[in-house]
Amino acid sequence: MNEVADATRFAELWSSLADVGRDRVTGGYRRFAWTSADLACRDWFASQAADRGLTVEIDRNGNQWAWWLPESGALGAAANADERRNALAIGSHLDSVPDGGAFDGPLGVISALAAIDLLRARDWRPQRPIVIANFADEEGARFGIACAGSRLLTGQLDAAKARALRDGDGVRLADAMESAGQDPDALGRDDEWLASISEFVELHIEQGRGLIDQDAPVGVASSIWPHGRWRFDFAGEANHAGTTALDDRRDPMLTYANTVLSARKKARLGGALATFGKVSVEPNGTNAIPSRVSAWLDSRAPDEAALDAVVEQISEAARERGARDGTAVEVVNESRTAIVEFDHGLRDKIRKTLTDVFGPVPQLPTGAGHDAGILAAELPTAMLFVRNPSGLSHTPAEHAEAADCLTGVAALAEVVAQLAGAQPGKNRGSGA
Amino acid sequence: MNEVADATRFAELWSSLADVGRDRVTGGYRRFAWTSADLACRDWFASQAADRGLTVEIDRNGNQWAWWLPESGALGAAANADERRNALAIGSHLDSVPDGGAFDGPLGVISALAAIDLLRARDWRPQRPIVIANFADEEGARFGIACAGSRLLTGQLDAAKARALRDGDGVRLADAMESAGQDPDALGRDDEWLASISEFVELHIEQGRGLIDQDAPVGVASSIWPHGRWRFDFAGEANHAGTTALDDRRDPMLTYANTVLSARKKARLGGALATFGKVSVEPNGTNAIPSRVSAWLDSRAPDEAALDAVVEQISEAARERGARDGTAVEVVNESRTAIVEFDHGLRDKIRKTLTDVFGPVPQLPTGAGHDAGILAAELPTAMLFVRNPSGLSHTPAEHAEAADCLTGVAALAEVVAQLAGAQPGKNRGSGA
Repeated sequence: MNEVADATRFAELWSSLADVGRDRVTGGYRRFAWTSADLACRDWFASQAADRGLTVEIDRNGNQWAWWLPESGALGAAANADERRNALAIGSHLDSVPDGGAFDGPLGVISALAAIDLLRARDWRPQRPIVIANFADEEGARFGIACAGSRLLTGQLDAAKARALRDGDGVRLADAMESAGQDPDALGRDDEWLASISEFVELHIEQGRGLIDQDAPVGVASSIWPHGRWRFDFAGEANHAGTTALDDRRDPMLTYANTVLSARKKARLGGALATFGKVSVEPNGTNAIPSRVSAWLDSRAPDEAALDAVVEQISEAARERGARDGTAVEVVNESRTAIVEFDHGLRDKIRKTLTDVFGPVPQLPTGAGHDAGILAAELPTAMLFVRNPSGLSHTPAEHAEAADCLTGVAALAEVVAQLAGAQPGKNRGSGA
Repeated sequence: MNEVADATRFAELWSSLADVGRDRVTGGYRRFAWTSADLACRDWFASQAADRGLTVEIDRNGNQWAWWLPESGALGAAANADERRNALAIGSHLDSVPDGGAFDGPLGVISALAAIDLLRARDWRPQRPIVIANFADEEGARFGIACAGSRLLTGQLDAAKARALRDGDGVRLADAMESAGQDPDALGRDDEWLASISEFVELHIEQGRGLIDQDAPVGVASSIWPHGRWRFDFAGEANHAGTTALDDRRDPMLTYANTVLSARKKARLGGALATFGKVSVEPNGTNAIPSRVSAWLDSRAPDEAALDAVVEQISEAARERGARDGTAVEVVNESRTAIVEFDHGLRDKIRKTLTDVFGPVPQLPTGAGHDAGILAAELPTAMLFVRNPSGLSHTPAEHAEAADCLTGVAALAEVVAQLAGAQPGKNRGSGA
């Protein structure tokens, strides 16, 4: 009976967000930071929190936090700094890449809400604060820097630099935030806020095929590969495509094309990943040789040295080809995230808890960045992954089976009960 | 004295259009068909015509025509079909490619106005109608089909197909025209209008380095290479750039990149031109493997067989690479223009007239399409080219020296006097 009720409640929660920011044609999501779609997601979050008596606060960097404090029991209350101490944070983000799937981000937030529902249905009460996070601008789809909310919170992204970031239409991040009612002058590292969080556990859909191969619905993260974004600017000379002899051209599209193929080759040889997924061409006219092609390299590797090597090899190949094409190549590192080894103590505690309930739980690395990776520099963090039957992510086809999602919620509830309960293990099963 | 007055008048005319639709940052023009910038150009044209007492009419396909009728002398009058018979058309277009230069198109329209000023200053009067054309949507920058105005007029572009064309924002050509006060239902071949024009002479800036090499300020066109546009759709599978193994990818960016390099190679071997200047990527996210890359091939060759061969070779190379990448390649011909041999009788008459006044005038082919090329299927047409010192075109750096522009105006005035005067040759120099 309870399982049916849990499944129904989860399905309702899921549907309540499913239409927000979804493109009717592609079926993908376009929830870019501080756009109306993103604000609708934030309203949804605030409303879900209010339904549960959780108190929502927005930190200086625009991240949303919904508090469940021990004293208040089922009902939240305005939290002060003292009451917030030693909190266990769960959650993820609600924004998306262009035409992203429904799960990357939202599954973590929805599962956090559902896990609290599950624990309350068992009459479980926290012994220390629990807070659900909705991190701002995790994907960086609009302003180009991933995990902007958590990077700002921890000072890994400079506030002045962030304010000056511009989207594709030239709108500054500062102005976008201000239009959304956030004070851009408040941005910056927030020691007080960070001091209130003791651990962060982020549940996320897996974005590869690791859990399929291991036949497990849920896994625990070991590490995040070091990764970064590099902008390649290829500058040539605009000219008429119909009248300029091939030898008179300085066509940056040729240099770009050769660099795309080099990147694949170098990544394969270096055991790394390298992708050009975003391109901007000027003037982008059918009968005009471009004056400039800008393209963004996303690269990741098992360790820092391998990442440095592959990016340097790709840059070198681009410059060599540029010399032949008469084009200038400039490579700018836009972001870089060091390897993250998740806290071993927290990870082992979580694995033990889950193994006791669900049987063996695999541990696996990932190439994707996450807010849990950013916060790992400040406090113990961990991640739970939910199986992705196709391995597809960042596409409307991204999917997870309902049964696996419910297992994810149950797993997260166990973890919360274990970490924030007075007597670990005692709460489990009380409502089963 | 007269030469100084002519130069001053030309400079004033030139400045009056120079700011319309110009981007402040790039200095290039963005006068796309039926946008506000284009409408401002059309208003400018109407106002210049009105200043000269020319009657402006708009044909069914949105092309503007300013009439100077024999009977009306210095002042135009509402023309009826009888009065318009046997007209000599001059002019060009005012729209631009993205970040185009100031000369491609406008030089022909401004020179036509200036040539009429020059002839009137000499008290010359036409013996048959003269009409200045501003052809709509010559560049095809917005809706993808070049010379749309003249193609519609001659029926080379189907009216229903044209109405359904969409710009990058999904706006239909029909709606764009309607918003601009044009009736899209009226589009289509206009026999009556075509019957009124006996010849068309289009003056244009040269878009290559032919006249520099021959050290001449003005030349006459011999032919236009056959040319066309082909859209290449590369379809793969969107996925997360950070978590998808290289072997699990179906990345259309790789297929596109390889096709760009193949196109250059095949064009070189075939003595042709091939350019990918416009690309559209979905979803175009930094950390997303694209689901689709669409790119437009512009290709031109000295003859039809060479053009067919090079496009087929590029398509074949794309399909072969697509098979290796797991991507699907579709090639759609969006436009195709057969080789144009300009009317030999008209061309020779013009060369003789100009040689008598200016000395030897070179004759040269071009790879660029023009409205004169489209109309050549209906009536004798010819083109005058004005020297381009850099050979650059379709870029803000496009330029012609003022002295060469004035020579162009003088040459066009000679041609008009010769073709539309009662006693050819007699009018020349009467005002000098």
